[in-house]
Amino acid sequence: MQGLMMDYPLTLRTVLDRANRLFPRRKLSTKIGASMHRYTYADFYDRVSKLANALARLGVQPGDRVATLAWNSYRHLELYFGIPCMGAVCHTLNLRLPPDQLIYIINHAEDKAICVDQSLLPLLEKISDHLKTVETIIVMADAPLQTTLTNAISYEELITGEQADFAWPELDERSAAAMCYTSGTTGNPKGVVYSHRSSYLHAVGACMTDSLGLSQNDIVMPVVPMFHVMAWGIPYAATFLGSEQVFPGPHLQPRDLADLIQNERVSLTAGVPTLWLGLFGLLEQERFDMSSLRVMIVGGSAAPRSMIENYQKKLGLRICHAWGMTETSPLGTVGNLKREVLEMPEDQQYAVRAKQGIPAPGIEVRAVDENGAEVAWDGKTMGELQVRGPWVASSYYNDPRSSASFVDGWFRTGDVVSFDEDGYMQIVDRTKDLVKSGGEWISTVELESVIMGHPGVLEAAVIAVPHAKWQERPLALVVARDKVAPPTKEAIYDHLAPHFAKWQLPDEILFVEAIPKTSVGKFDKKVVREQYKDYTLPE
Amino acid sequence: MQGLMMDYPLTLRTVLDRANRLFPRRKLSTKIGASMHRYTYADFYDRVSKLANALARLGVQPGDRVATLAWNSYRHLELYFGIPCMGAVCHTLNLRLPPDQLIYIINHAEDKAICVDQSLLPLLEKISDHLKTVETIIVMADAPLQTTLTNAISYEELITGEQADFAWPELDERSAAAMCYTSGTTGNPKGVVYSHRSSYLHAVGACMTDSLGLSQNDIVMPVVPMFHVMAWGIPYAATFLGSEQVFPGPHLQPRDLADLIQNERVSLTAGVPTLWLGLFGLLEQERFDMSSLRVMIVGGSAAPRSMIENYQKKLGLRICHAWGMTETSPLGTVGNLKREVLEMPEDQQYAVRAKQGIPAPGIEVRAVDENGAEVAWDGKTMGELQVRGPWVASSYYNDPRSSASFVDGWFRTGDVVSFDEDGYMQIVDRTKDLVKSGGEWISTVELESVIMGHPGVLEAAVIAVPHAKWQERPLALVVARDKVAPPTKEAIYDHLAPHFAKWQLPDEILFVEAIPKTSVGKFDKKVVREQYKDYTLPE
Repeated sequence: MQGLMMDYPLTLRTVLDRANRLFPRRKLSTKIGASMHRYTYADFYDRVSKLANALARLGVQPGDRVATLAWNSYRHLELYFGIPCMGAVCHTLNLRLPPDQLIYIINHAEDKAICVDQSLLPLLEKISDHLKTVETIIVMADAPLQTTLTNAISYEELITGEQADFAWPELDERSAAAMCYTSGTTGNPKGVVYSHRSSYLHAVGACMTDSLGLSQNDIVMPVVPMFHVMAWGIPYAATFLGSEQVFPGPHLQPRDLADLIQNERVSLTAGVPTLWLGLFGLLEQERFDMSSLRVMIVGGSAAPRSMIENYQKKLGLRICHAWGMTETSPLGTVGNLKREVLEMPEDQQYAVRAKQGIPAPGIEVRAVDENGAEVAWDGKTMGELQVRGPWVASSYYNDPRSSASFVDGWFRTGDVVSFDEDGYMQIVDRTKDLVKSGGEWISTVELESVIMGHPGVLEAAVIAVPHAKWQERPLALVVARDKVAPPTKEAIYDHLAPHFAKWQLPDEILFVEAIPKTSVGKFDKKVVREQYKDYTLPE
Repeated sequence: MQGLMMDYPLTLRTVLDRANRLFPRRKLSTKIGASMHRYTYADFYDRVSKLANALARLGVQPGDRVATLAWNSYRHLELYFGIPCMGAVCHTLNLRLPPDQLIYIINHAEDKAICVDQSLLPLLEKISDHLKTVETIIVMADAPLQTTLTNAISYEELITGEQADFAWPELDERSAAAMCYTSGTTGNPKGVVYSHRSSYLHAVGACMTDSLGLSQNDIVMPVVPMFHVMAWGIPYAATFLGSEQVFPGPHLQPRDLADLIQNERVSLTAGVPTLWLGLFGLLEQERFDMSSLRVMIVGGSAAPRSMIENYQKKLGLRICHAWGMTETSPLGTVGNLKREVLEMPEDQQYAVRAKQGIPAPGIEVRAVDENGAEVAWDGKTMGELQVRGPWVASSYYNDPRSSASFVDGWFRTGDVVSFDEDGYMQIVDRTKDLVKSGGEWISTVELESVIMGHPGVLEAAVIAVPHAKWQERPLALVVARDKVAPPTKEAIYDHLAPHFAKWQLPDEILFVEAIPKTSVGKFDKKVVREQYKDYTLPE
């Protein structure tokens, strides 16, 4: 027997429409140089409609990929809606990728057009000869177009004469809405294709009280780039609710962020830990009014417990830890606190807050051992994390590597985790980052987290280096906060001692100038491992 | 181009599974006589599994209808999950319906079994000879089974020997999960069939911050009956989040509710306005600790502004107005306050809070005039409300009346409403309740709301009575709070005068002992109109 309910497709059109109908006067603000560009959801809707008309006039067909190469801005948000709601696929390009990977991605996705910020145009000019499918480059600029590319046109000129209304097509909810490539540790990036259904359900998921908890009265600033897993889906969620949004553009220095939070009265923001580590440094030295901020969402890497504690105790600011991947849209787990946790002593509460949270409602998780058996939720036993749910990928785009990652209806994340009795997940490590020492595993993530809790340490990365006797042993690389007077090695070992067994401690601690980072701001352990692959540990 | 996301079906199994996995120790509490029955989600899951096994053993097939005739209790919650998750359809029967309507509904739905509270068994015994499809009566009791029915078995005996685990089938998300009949004003009740998809999406909708805002740390008490539009979907939402739940059983007197809120530390409750009017009377006279209560959701009828103000100002309790119907699962609009409203003077805020709210995220609304054209959102112009969305019905079950209500992908609600500029909806009246006076419309709902704001008035209902000159004119029936010393007619007219034009005032005000109510606690205007159909208004 079938239900007798409307066959109402879950698409981004509903999201777009609601902001325009119910919140037409709410503001969207973008930092452009020293000033702010501001307009309303009504203005936004008009321009999204014009964009859709313009793309149709350019010959963009349903399912065609239209790429974006842009910072977080109102124009990028227009592309987030205009492209998928007119039936095409919004493919976000990571502007920090090396040229060869950009070329691979654009050709692999067969992008028909690329919408690019004027400031990023040089990236495209360099590689344009290698792009096989791109017909048009659409340049988003506040000044007249300047380029060597012959197929470039101005975004503003493109949309200016169009109708501020569009006959939005009735889309199949399973049709593609957006696309994002994830950089593998080896080989070429892999493409994830989000559907309207998954994007809609993910947005709703983010708006649940027990998930990210976005609300109509929030002023939301996604600092996580819009080219990185759809800025964690936050722009879609915020638009659905009519929340005001603040876009920092390319201005991501601690002072930029502090100014924006203070002046725009931001209540919710989101980004990787390195951002908030940097911001904390500034906030310790200088007074900003952060009173509007009710939550800072952190993900992408494990946030050191010390950072979470410092923000809470010294600044009264709440950091909420979440976990996800490009393949999970990305919302997987969120660190909201159960009443049972809130009743624990403070120290235990922070231990839970440093974990990555419990599964977001709608997401199923399991951790399995090498034989594929689910491991116990005892807070200790480790297993590989597998996930399934309505916003989890089922395969990579045209990629034979899919069969290794998507098995029996589950996505194999490659993350090693443990779950405690309350269901809080702790990322122990990436499978490939774990130190395999004499048959035992050592978590580099846990070592890093504790080392970064030392007041003299700014950043730390731990890697496995080959060892004759133990197979692998941990090596710690440390960036001192004060390079003139760094902490001693002994001080760091003393700091580690209460938290680890002796055999888990790094064999060596090296002070370095900086730790290489990936295109999305995580420690780039692939590069670090390469640098130290011939390093010989002390006896 | 299709998205490459998992084809993960949206079903109630995900909801059930999450409570068991993540919140096994959270409590479910039911008032039984003078004591409380308590168990955990882990216990609940075991019994739901046993129930599923037992139903399968009884021969219940996918799609079979299994009815419930029960008060709000843990066993009713077991049926809410056990029946649909094993593939059958949970058909809730309204225990307040007259026997002929119960017979019609059970036969029309072709229920195969009925699960009934011991206390309600006499209702079934009376009509059992007329039931054509029912094979088994399953009696839920805390004492040995006592009945004249030969096909009755005990619920507890039925499940007791079963396995506490079940191989849940992979269900199509569009398959039927539940069924609820809505009593029409004329003719037989009409059946609405909820799918797993709609029930899941509705539960998620209720958990959005900007909707009902349920959270894992809430202690939720649905007072709205579980036989009435799935208790507004609250049991599904609360289970999804692992919120603790409190079920009042048949104990719905003001003192019962006040005791439960106080003793169980209820944080969120929901019910019709008459319930909260009654509770307020008690709370004014006697002190209860209501400090745990963060929101009382009211729906089903328009809540008088005075009630909302009284709760807030005298008791510091927040009432949140919502609107919905059986056909909308029921979540349609919710009265959360936009920042723009929170910045208004207090008096205007209350005016907004007395409206029914803005569309829940995911629900589309429009108000249309007699020509089908959408009316302006100006806070004045009235139109018939039409709705669409993923949890709105597309037709009634085997009912030729469907074609009148479901047209062009929209559900015609029969409610006359206006929308203000901010999108807040005000129910003006049911189409059929409006007073059509000399070509103008008079809202009976607005008159009732203001009359009930007079401190001497407990309840008020306004109906249209025939009038020679004006076609129809309003007649007000009033129940005085103090029947020994009721307010004067003149006092009520004086109270109405500032809010209405003279021609909108009732032609007569009659004091009555009580106002008849429907099976779900609304004023039964059909009955009132019948009583006064020959009433002659004063000249």
